[in-house]
Amino acid sequence: MDEKINICLPDTGQPAFLPGTVWLVGAGPGDPGLLTLHALHALQAADTIVYDALVSEDILKLARPGAALEYAGKRGGKPSAKQPGITRRLIELALAGQRVLRLKGGAPFLFGRGGEEALALAAASIVFRFVPGVTAGVGGLAAAGIPMTHRTTGHSVTFVTGHRAGGSLPDGLDWKALATGSPTLVFYMALAHLEVIVAHLLANGLDAATPSALVSHATLPTQQVIEAPIAGLAHIVREENIEAPAILVIGDVVRLRRALDPSLTPQARALAAEELSADWHRVSE
Amino acid sequence: MDEKINICLPDTGQPAFLPGTVWLVGAGPGDPGLLTLHALHALQAADTIVYDALVSEDILKLARPGAALEYAGKRGGKPSAKQPGITRRLIELALAGQRVLRLKGGAPFLFGRGGEEALALAAASIVFRFVPGVTAGVGGLAAAGIPMTHRTTGHSVTFVTGHRAGGSLPDGLDWKALATGSPTLVFYMALAHLEVIVAHLLANGLDAATPSALVSHATLPTQQVIEAPIAGLAHIVREENIEAPAILVIGDVVRLRRALDPSLTPQARALAAEELSADWHRVSE
Repeated sequence: MDEKINICLPDTGQPAFLPGTVWLVGAGPGDPGLLTLHALHALQAADTIVYDALVSEDILKLARPGAALEYAGKRGGKPSAKQPGITRRLIELALAGQRVLRLKGGAPFLFGRGGEEALALAAASIVFRFVPGVTAGVGGLAAAGIPMTHRTTGHSVTFVTGHRAGGSLPDGLDWKALATGSPTLVFYMALAHLEVIVAHLLANGLDAATPSALVSHATLPTQQVIEAPIAGLAHIVREENIEAPAILVIGDVVRLRRALDPSLTPQARALAAEELSADWHRVSE
Repeated sequence: MDEKINICLPDTGQPAFLPGTVWLVGAGPGDPGLLTLHALHALQAADTIVYDALVSEDILKLARPGAALEYAGKRGGKPSAKQPGITRRLIELALAGQRVLRLKGGAPFLFGRGGEEALALAAASIVFRFVPGVTAGVGGLAAAGIPMTHRTTGHSVTFVTGHRAGGSLPDGLDWKALATGSPTLVFYMALAHLEVIVAHLLANGLDAATPSALVSHATLPTQQVIEAPIAGLAHIVREENIEAPAILVIGDVVRLRRALDPSLTPQARALAAEELSADWHRVSE
């Protein structure tokens, strides 16, 4: 069934990756096919690639042969490389005249500390460039058949990190606004503090029956999805020994999954779509 | 200065685009370099491409020669193609055995009505696949040097549509939660109702001095950025005759722009970064 198509990158006005500069690039949620053309260009042009733990092996395989790969992330419970050490290294490599690719999972400017690294590069007068990626909240949920927003619900969606750089749940979150203010809530890195997140939301007015899903290893062959009303989700997630990284989505949009999840048969999806259409698919205009 | 690099798409386990199926694909914010590898593959394999108004000419040029291009969007104030008509057309083309690419600006599952089209396809037992894109909120703001979140602010960000399918501001937004609940607010399609959005937020407790920026034609050569405290933004935007589409961002992260905007000189960025670092760049751990 597989058709092989040979595609060469067209000239899309790609800016040149100049020696002595740093590109801060988002690698997307994991599937190499979700890399952007700019990101692939950067992988093929970089002299050194400084990557974090969420960048998959399959993506690193796309690097130019001969490029140096440097790991700067957290693995197996060990503490992460120190942030000042990472930024110092980026500056050092750039000053040595290299093309430096700083490759991060997802979109580095959304919970990715990309702004922090960019600020340090700016202070050192290093020329840098951002290349945004497909963020895990958008790409990971799409892979599970869950849209962020839908016509009759969801004119807004709130993205929250469930995990600070140091490992704890962020302070100062407005749980009341989160619990009741947004029709769709998406928590990144939601696994470590899942029970606490859910408890805060329920205590602040979130309906215990609100549909929710946890997507682990989104867009990768190892992807797993657990779906349940929010009050019962954590119990199932722990029973199934779901692994990080995982995204949590809470809201009525989760109901669409049984019609849209690509892992279901077309017959099952058609049946579910008919059922859902009674209240949701009143297409007007 | 330009280095031309010839890159052919590696085998990233791209799924085959089978005849009789529909791919719902996000084209990203506008820059063709922000297309994903899957999106480029789809452009090169599709028989018919049904695209909307936010998909740029430069992206359509990447289609396989011979592919049929069908426009389904809004242009020049004319009413948009009717949604039921679009979904009927997608189904008709798929039933005729074509590879159908439904190409939308940004990420079709975030304010893009992609869920709605997918539901109609599911009900008709058409096999479809989602390919998420770089959403304008993430990619467009990165191009203006504005991260969504930063270490000492921003453990959450809320994305809101400023424009319903019918053209009006959405009903039922929780303005109180928006005004005070999220450190960063991003409005898509913010231009038409900019004054009303700002008035609602100020009336519900948003500080009039909160930094804000409007990014028009994000990631395209015609990109423009207007930055001002939120209470004064709309006046400048109207004076400058800024054009849609535009993204509005509100929050302290906008302050980072003067150190991170790629259109500034390295000298200006270094100076700003030093100034900002006094309160923001206390990197610990």
